[in-house]
Amino acid sequence: MTIHYPNGTQYQPHSANRPMHTNASLVKHGGRGMTLEQEINESNQYYLAHDIAVIHKKPTPIQIVKVDYPKRSAAVIREAYFRQASTTDYNGIYRGRYIDFDAKETKETTRFPLDNFHQHQVEHMRSCLKQGGICFGLVKFVTLDQLYLLKATDLIKYWDAQENGNGRKSIPLSAFEASAIPIKYSLNPIIAYLDAVDQLI
Amino acid sequence: MTIHYPNGTQYQPHSANRPMHTNASLVKHGGRGMTLEQEINESNQYYLAHDIAVIHKKPTPIQIVKVDYPKRSAAVIREAYFRQASTTDYNGIYRGRYIDFDAKETKETTRFPLDNFHQHQVEHMRSCLKQGGICFGLVKFVTLDQLYLLKATDLIKYWDAQENGNGRKSIPLSAFEASAIPIKYSLNPIIAYLDAVDQLI
Repeated sequence: MTIHYPNGTQYQPHSANRPMHTNASLVKHGGRGMTLEQEINESNQYYLAHDIAVIHKKPTPIQIVKVDYPKRSAAVIREAYFRQASTTDYNGIYRGRYIDFDAKETKETTRFPLDNFHQHQVEHMRSCLKQGGICFGLVKFVTLDQLYLLKATDLIKYWDAQENGNGRKSIPLSAFEASAIPIKYSLNPIIAYLDAVDQLI
Repeated sequence: MTIHYPNGTQYQPHSANRPMHTNASLVKHGGRGMTLEQEINESNQYYLAHDIAVIHKKPTPIQIVKVDYPKRSAAVIREAYFRQASTTDYNGIYRGRYIDFDAKETKETTRFPLDNFHQHQVEHMRSCLKQGGICFGLVKFVTLDQLYLLKATDLIKYWDAQENGNGRKSIPLSAFEASAIPIKYSLNPIIAYLDAVDQLI
């Protein structure tokens, strides 16, 4: 029997065509199938719940052009555009220190292209370093399934060399192996990146 | 003579019908006509440009439902809703310290109603304080043209008393005069709120 709801859409039981929603916060599977952003957000929730750190992802910046205010219901944004962020995506506090970083994924297997970062993100890190903040990138080589904490000072060194026209357009994997801090997947949190941060403090 | 550009729009000289854009960062007038948010943003720009602090307002959190991707032009968000933020609006770093605050305006003249803050903002401040952060509210009594730095510890004291049912629903102005830090308007930055923060460090 087919049940038709008043709006004309057809009822579909959960077991049928629709994918089941799994509760990501309950089902832990070492980050399989999750984006780096999801892995970081879950890890931040763990750190927050256990009073270890307060680190959040900033919302995506949006330029709002048109908003409808229907009676008796919530305001609806009808026209808006994505803007470029003027900072990195993540910041917060850990052990009294200001933490600031961005997350980047690459499918490359031998190098990390610098154009994954934007000029303003690098400048933002430079400013935060001057104030005594702890800044870095979390860089994931997706194909290799390898995750590194890349110190902002190292990133800036490669960035400036590229800007001056006498550097490469990417950071070789060998440089990560030599001077970045590898992060292993674990159960709780999925990525214990603050253990890597401990090595910077 | 009328000049038509290839796309059919008509050229308008700057002196004609269009309003001139005044450069808000050049014209300073002690905050007159600016919202508290604008005053803080301008002050933060000043602090950033002078290597004094790196403090930004977080973007408004938006739940995006529908996005159009027109050919050869930018993606357009066609349906989205405002979400409630899970943190305060401003954070950053100053003199090596993590700074976290929210800005509130009230038209009241004798008291600041606590419902200007949301539960999650107070909980966020509580978490940041535990990590050693510097947390506060910037509270402006618009009608009185008075601005105060309200320490998070004082805010939490009133908040918890209210929650426990044995406190007031607002903080009296007299309490601000007694224990909040007054902030005077100045030229550069418009509100030198980090001078008030110095008294907390």
